[in-house]
Amino acid sequence: MSAAVARASSWTRRHLLDVDELSRSDLEALLDGAADLRDQRTSGDLGETRDRLAGQTVGLAFYEASTRTRVSFELAARELGATVVDLSRAASSVAKGESLVDTMLTLQRTGVGTVVLRHAAAGAPYLVARATGLRVLNAGDGAHAHPTQALLDALTLREALGATLEGRTIAIVGDIAHSRVARSNLHALTRLGARVVIGGPPAWVAGFSGWPGVRVAANLQDALQDADAVMTLRVQLERAAGSGISSLREYTRAWGLDSERMSWARPGAPILHPGPTNEGIELSAELAASERSLIGRQVMNGVPIRMAVLARLAD
Amino acid sequence: MSAAVARASSWTRRHLLDVDELSRSDLEALLDGAADLRDQRTSGDLGETRDRLAGQTVGLAFYEASTRTRVSFELAARELGATVVDLSRAASSVAKGESLVDTMLTLQRTGVGTVVLRHAAAGAPYLVARATGLRVLNAGDGAHAHPTQALLDALTLREALGATLEGRTIAIVGDIAHSRVARSNLHALTRLGARVVIGGPPAWVAGFSGWPGVRVAANLQDALQDADAVMTLRVQLERAAGSGISSLREYTRAWGLDSERMSWARPGAPILHPGPTNEGIELSAELAASERSLIGRQVMNGVPIRMAVLARLAD
Amino acid sequence: MSAAVARASSWTRRHLLDVDELSRSDLEALLDGAADLRDQRTSGDLGETRDRLAGQTVGLAFYEASTRTRVSFELAARELGATVVDLSRAASSVAKGESLVDTMLTLQRTGVGTVVLRHAAAGAPYLVARATGLRVLNAGDGAHAHPTQALLDALTLREALGATLEGRTIAIVGDIAHSRVARSNLHALTRLGARVVIGGPPAWVAGFSGWPGVRVAANLQDALQDADAVMTLRVQLERAAGSGISSLREYTRAWGLDSERMSWARPGAPILHPGPTNEGIELSAELAASERSLIGRQVMNGVPIRMAVLARLAD
Repeated sequence: MSAAVARASSWTRRHLLDVDELSRSDLEALLDGAADLRDQRTSGDLGETRDRLAGQTVGLAFYEASTRTRVSFELAARELGATVVDLSRAASSVAKGESLVDTMLTLQRTGVGTVVLRHAAAGAPYLVARATGLRVLNAGDGAHAHPTQALLDALTLREALGATLEGRTIAIVGDIAHSRVARSNLHALTRLGARVVIGGPPAWVAGFSGWPGVRVAANLQDALQDADAVMTLRVQLERAAGSGISSLREYTRAWGLDSERMSWARPGAPILHPGPTNEGIELSAELAASERSLIGRQVMNGVPIRMAVLARLAD
Repeated sequence: MSAAVARASSWTRRHLLDVDELSRSDLEALLDGAADLRDQRTSGDLGETRDRLAGQTVGLAFYEASTRTRVSFELAARELGATVVDLSRAASSVAKGESLVDTMLTLQRTGVGTVVLRHAAAGAPYLVARATGLRVLNAGDGAHAHPTQALLDALTLREALGATLEGRTIAIVGDIAHSRVARSNLHALTRLGARVVIGGPPAWVAGFSGWPGVRVAANLQDALQDADAVMTLRVQLERAAGSGISSLREYTRAWGLDSERMSWARPGAPILHPGPTNEGIELSAELAASERSLIGRQVMNGVPIRMAVLARLAD
Repeated sequence: MSAAVARASSWTRRHLLDVDELSRSDLEALLDGAADLRDQRTSGDLGETRDRLAGQTVGLAFYEASTRTRVSFELAARELGATVVDLSRAASSVAKGESLVDTMLTLQRTGVGTVVLRHAAAGAPYLVARATGLRVLNAGDGAHAHPTQALLDALTLREALGATLEGRTIAIVGDIAHSRVARSNLHALTRLGARVVIGGPPAWVAGFSGWPGVRVAANLQDALQDADAVMTLRVQLERAAGSGISSLREYTRAWGLDSERMSWARPGAPILHPGPTNEGIELSAELAASERSLIGRQVMNGVPIRMAVLARLAD
């Protein structure tokens, strides 16, 4: 068991700000809880869970647009019996840090107990957690963290690879440096005992060579060669220019995934992507639609993961 | 009974994409069901209907703005006990057909079972019905179809004219060619046994002369002369230019309705309009506010019609 | 007891359009009801109040953006068991008075019973109350009135100063002339028996010298000298130019509040502000965060006040 694994939990269970607060047993408890909720939800019988957040108010504050994540949190909170208020339209009037805190204090005084916050500024959820009495659930802050995405990815990987990720190798390909999804996955996967191999143009993987349990691959074949599963990231088209790759075409030639290249990985290794995909760029349409693709499962696991986190914060 | 009337139902009851899927008995069952729901709603006792969609999630995806239709669907779904999520803000980020399907697949995986879709592209609801497992309710697609509007118009006409529309004559005046409301009404009214007379500038009625049960009138007096009821359509002010009429003033002179001109129709014939009206253009303010006007009844019938359709899709 | 106090109630209890409809006993009944609701809400037991608006639909029509007021009304209506529909996105398509009435009539026909309306045009809620069958709750109309803000301010003052405001002196500082908050507070506070002293640049207090129970102060020290409590208003930065003050800096020097200047008021006099604050302009950040500040209490009292009003209209 590595040092990272043995690390004790620093999680207060008041907030979920990033995965790095969670110990391995915290992570596994959340994944086990989410798996149970997924099964209960499928069977149509949530039992007492349906009233878990009754009388509580959850505010959705998405200062960056999102369909899947907002709807996923909204359904999760409502399935637990919470009252949900959507504060996202307030977003346009908030720019500076002070105003964000003032808005959040106002919400708290109105009776909102938990806020689900997505914000372009890395660290914004920490600011709100420190300056208010709200429970804060980070739904993505700048390029920093997206903890529930990492949790649903881990749940999806456990479903596909077996009960534990201990000793498994997961390849993550793309713009690791600017991706909150990748960063939170590095924390979650290594803490769960997996080895992570990252690959991408040099500017996109720089700075991760010292991360415990993480190896930087020389090229795509090297990244995939021992992979039990492969995750590729959305290329931010607006960021591609001037970021170490000379063209999207070159990126796709060097790092794009298709079914043929997936043969470099272990037999049957699945492909994950946090969505929305740029088909034909980071992965082929054929691979995204193939039996190897877990993209649909990732979305399906979003609601039970968010239910498990909301229920845990309410304990 | 005409051939159109005798046509067997091709309705799968998984979706409501257009009226042309519905047989006469499908239509009458929906209208009867809506009339019952309207009465139950008025008496304040929906009985078991209140839980009809309990545990189901309905997504509202209005990619074109709408107050009355969105609120009408939202209340209809909530009165049946559904969880409603509003996806309309997602609209801005969706332009191409592929993205629409991807967004809808995401919603399905999140747990949304039925989507109410309004989209500027004719055929968009068919695409979503084919490419996803969602139940799709078309709330207006381009100039193609608006089936629940036609159903609420038929319910309003049945209330005003008696239990059946068989053998009745309904005049529809305006831009038939570009109106999804008119197109769905042509299907519904002819299938219910009514004769339809359409009138408007040549470019706005072209192509409908061969439609079974439909006659193109030479002028407004001709359109109205046998009419048991008259429906006029909103002039799309932005479309009027360059569409066969030289000016709004000319349109109003030739085709605008007022109480005096309504005397060309059968005695007491009511006036309908899908709203919002351009008063002083397609009809006079005095006529819109008169006892002949069913415009308010049309809106009132919107919720029970949408409840009847949602309940039918859930059977 | 002044003439204003003795005035009989003209309140129909169908609408809440402004405080001036309310007699002193109407006001006190609402404040007492809100205080009870606040206590019930704090203890987590609303009892039968939770179903007070069951089966009723409340529409939120905020034609001006607002976080705190919209969320406060939304939670108030939902805690009373109402179905809430948010119509605010409709705002963009409504400009003229006729369209507003048409939209509101449509909502009424759809089944909405009560509308909470915020509109940039003074008088808009009166128009809707007259032209439709909706119950109308004014959530702010232009520079005219904001009755629930005045009610929550009065509740906050009663908490801080004791059971009655009779004979108390309240100073209101700022742009009285353009503030719907100030105008509604003048009605509420004088009717509850308080004396009101107003202060600000001449153009901002002109026209109020004849208001019964209101005195115009010569300067800030004069405004504060007998004050049991001080309320300052948000400076509308866009209005400051060309409105009688030559600069924000000059306003702050003459009328800005800080802890030192608060010593001109009675010992322990609290400070109120309707939010959001411009710290460093109308009041110092230190004063806003001090123990004298009731700004947080004002927000907290928003939900029970709105619950009390909604429940009263539903009687």
